[in-house]
Amino acid sequence: MTERISALHIDQYDLNMPYAWWKAGLADRRVQFDVYFRKHPFGSGFTVFAGLERIVHYLENLRFTEEDIAYLRNRPERYDEGFLDVLRGFRFRGNVDAMREGEIVFPEEPLLKIEGTVLEAALVEAAVLNIVNWHAPVATKAARMKEVAGDEPLIEMATRRMPEVDAAVWAARAAYIAGFDATSNTYADMRFGIPAKGTMGHMWIQSFDSELEAFRRFVEAFPEGAVLLVDTYDTLRSGVPNAITVAKEMEARGQRLLGIRLDSGDIAYLSIQARRMLDEAGLDYVKIFATNNLDEDVIASLKEQGAKVDVWGVGTMLAAVGASLGAVYKMKARWVNGRMQPVIKVSDNFEKTTVPGDLVVYRLYDRATGMARGDYIALAAEELPDEVELFHPVYTHKRKRVTGYEAQALLVPVFRDGERVYELPSLDAIRQYHRRQLSRFWPEYRRRLNPEEYPVSLSERLWTMRERMIAEQRAKFA
Amino acid sequence: MTERISALHIDQYDLNMPYAWWKAGLADRRVQFDVYFRKHPFGSGFTVFAGLERIVHYLENLRFTEEDIAYLRNRPERYDEGFLDVLRGFRFRGNVDAMREGEIVFPEEPLLKIEGTVLEAALVEAAVLNIVNWHAPVATKAARMKEVAGDEPLIEMATRRMPEVDAAVWAARAAYIAGFDATSNTYADMRFGIPAKGTMGHMWIQSFDSELEAFRRFVEAFPEGAVLLVDTYDTLRSGVPNAITVAKEMEARGQRLLGIRLDSGDIAYLSIQARRMLDEAGLDYVKIFATNNLDEDVIASLKEQGAKVDVWGVGTMLAAVGASLGAVYKMKARWVNGRMQPVIKVSDNFEKTTVPGDLVVYRLYDRATGMARGDYIALAAEELPDEVELFHPVYTHKRKRVTGYEAQALLVPVFRDGERVYELPSLDAIRQYHRRQLSRFWPEYRRRLNPEEYPVSLSERLWTMRERMIAEQRAKFA
Repeated sequence: MTERISALHIDQYDLNMPYAWWKAGLADRRVQFDVYFRKHPFGSGFTVFAGLERIVHYLENLRFTEEDIAYLRNRPERYDEGFLDVLRGFRFRGNVDAMREGEIVFPEEPLLKIEGTVLEAALVEAAVLNIVNWHAPVATKAARMKEVAGDEPLIEMATRRMPEVDAAVWAARAAYIAGFDATSNTYADMRFGIPAKGTMGHMWIQSFDSELEAFRRFVEAFPEGAVLLVDTYDTLRSGVPNAITVAKEMEARGQRLLGIRLDSGDIAYLSIQARRMLDEAGLDYVKIFATNNLDEDVIASLKEQGAKVDVWGVGTMLAAVGASLGAVYKMKARWVNGRMQPVIKVSDNFEKTTVPGDLVVYRLYDRATGMARGDYIALAAEELPDEVELFHPVYTHKRKRVTGYEAQALLVPVFRDGERVYELPSLDAIRQYHRRQLSRFWPEYRRRLNPEEYPVSLSERLWTMRERMIAEQRAKFA
Repeated sequence: MTERISALHIDQYDLNMPYAWWKAGLADRRVQFDVYFRKHPFGSGFTVFAGLERIVHYLENLRFTEEDIAYLRNRPERYDEGFLDVLRGFRFRGNVDAMREGEIVFPEEPLLKIEGTVLEAALVEAAVLNIVNWHAPVATKAARMKEVAGDEPLIEMATRRMPEVDAAVWAARAAYIAGFDATSNTYADMRFGIPAKGTMGHMWIQSFDSELEAFRRFVEAFPEGAVLLVDTYDTLRSGVPNAITVAKEMEARGQRLLGIRLDSGDIAYLSIQARRMLDEAGLDYVKIFATNNLDEDVIASLKEQGAKVDVWGVGTMLAAVGASLGAVYKMKARWVNGRMQPVIKVSDNFEKTTVPGDLVVYRLYDRATGMARGDYIALAAEELPDEVELFHPVYTHKRKRVTGYEAQALLVPVFRDGERVYELPSLDAIRQYHRRQLSRFWPEYRRRLNPEEYPVSLSERLWTMRERMIAEQRAKFA
């Protein structure tokens, strides 16, 4: 796993623009950027933010090595030596506010706000997005599976199908945040303390002359916690009967078989039959593990069909979420003569037009039920009124008034002038926070198919400012 | 980037099975595994193998550290201390044969053959697949774009949308192998020597009061090689006219603007109009770069519409290839009392039934044209006959005779008893090899949509052996 991300893990233009600012004597110009996304992935009604700890460590350790400088000196841009000196002494000294890891987040909400010099803001762009764009969709996909699996354990088993090493290890962490219980990846256990669980692969069976011998040998090594893979030859005619034989032999020794694993075929049918066979043998405690291209849709369908699965192992479908969040990094404000000015980017595609300014996000909870009623994006300079009117940013006639609410500021200060002011929670605390936050959303926002759109409103003042800025810019090219 | 992959970057069962073999006194049992895939990704007619160098370095450096051992000692499996001693002294001492990087490969062909003890074979499973399952689909997707782009340069710009750090850096390499010309990722340049190119982002424009001022300041820093982003306000009414103004000012100083970049809107229309405006201003040398969710389909469509694009920048669509190859790692042979036995895994799903035995792959080229006529998978023990009959493994009546061919053995020895016996080619040599190999396939196998299925045949002897083994296994559970 990449513990230390190189300062050159950037897009080259994120060095060329700072160089040009430096040449123009503008290297200290101050700007603010937001990381945000435009659309929930997977048709979801919510997204789960993850990756903050990774970003914090990246920013804290961001340094140009002498090797980096030597490389840069020979680049075709022929940077001035003075600029290389700036890089040599570079430390991230900006301000960062961020959503907490595990937070439930929505389109247009800043996931991170990064304020600093143009150099700082440009340099960190690619790495920050590279992290968010992986951690968050994995956590979201995992949360959707957790919604369907309920209290039944979920194991992440995606390493072999993952996009290279980092993706595999960090996915284990993101899935755990979102409610998974374990991983197959041993390194993720050593590094993060996520329980790594192993069952048995076909190679074990195939290295012996018979499946029964293979099962017997395995439980000798693992008198506790053995999970036998039963689909190598014929699940119901060979695998399950052999597993029952071995489980009864274990009982005679005062041991218990933990489970069997189904990895192919019709999991609904096979699990029902296997359960019946195990129960008839008095092995109701033997759990059934299922794997094989599972995701939230397949798990839901299997449960509808009455599948008797106790533990779900998820691989490929977590590995396939790449590039699905599409988080972007956009300038929201700049300082001119020490005064902050909001900045907008207008696009013909309305959803690509930015929300300008120094933003804050409040989640408004109903005092009576404790449930989330809507999110409210305002300018940092605004006071939160006693009565808030939430309205849809496009269909502005869709309005609802919220009074008697309790507000939670979703963005927390993480860095101030490069000093970390936020204590990173433990992984289990993050996981609990996620669960609590998700529990405060009504089921209609959480459901797997066609969820309701959760209200996310701009403040009246922010909306008006944005409309004015759009009109001003349009007027220039009318 | 992860330079050294941890020995614990495994699926936990790949340690539990070796432990159980060791407990059973079978740790030296010898086996052979193949890495292969079952179906081309993206509807492609071919796949590009990549990642070998990464795998070679992984295998050469595979060690358990004292920290790893200390972690393992405290695992719930309670491994015997003797097993931990085995791990402490572990080195990969197996044999590996592999396709050359950049090779054109087909379903069922071994991409790698790994022969060694059960411990060796199990330990490396997850990491090897984790690498192949990323490098190869990225190279394949990139090769498909190269087919469409022809001689027009392609730049990989996907870092921010990539699944974490490793995926981003290695994708730059895989895309370069498959014919891309450059990357946006600076680290990939430092590490692999892939030219890193930078243009300009919206942040540059937005940090100035006007687009014209922004353009002027940028070319002051980059009198050579500047590419101006023209879509911030209005491409044809602001961006292109301002770029023309600046380009003419540069001409007066004896400089030349390299290009403009279109990043939104209708690239076909905008590029045609921008080209006309540039040409009318006498700026026919200014190149047009296009970016914005490009892939082989979009590039082909834009070219059909007469788009005037000189350089293609590709991001998101390369990042979205995750989990698309689905390469697997299956036992093909085992040694019993010193004698090799082929091993089969039969599945109700025919395409999941393995091709057993110690396999070799020949590519047969027509002597007259030099073009590939078919691939021939045989047992290593077989002689290659003068006349080969290729037949479809399922529709066996689809046959063709090949005589007067020139054969290329596609698998090369990489490790023998843990010693590397293969000299890793330079990245440019790999890229050239890929290009040469692809050029030996007729267009019908290379086309983007509905390609012909290239003939890949088992030898008669291999096919017969496989049929017999399937029948034998079926008979057991009849």
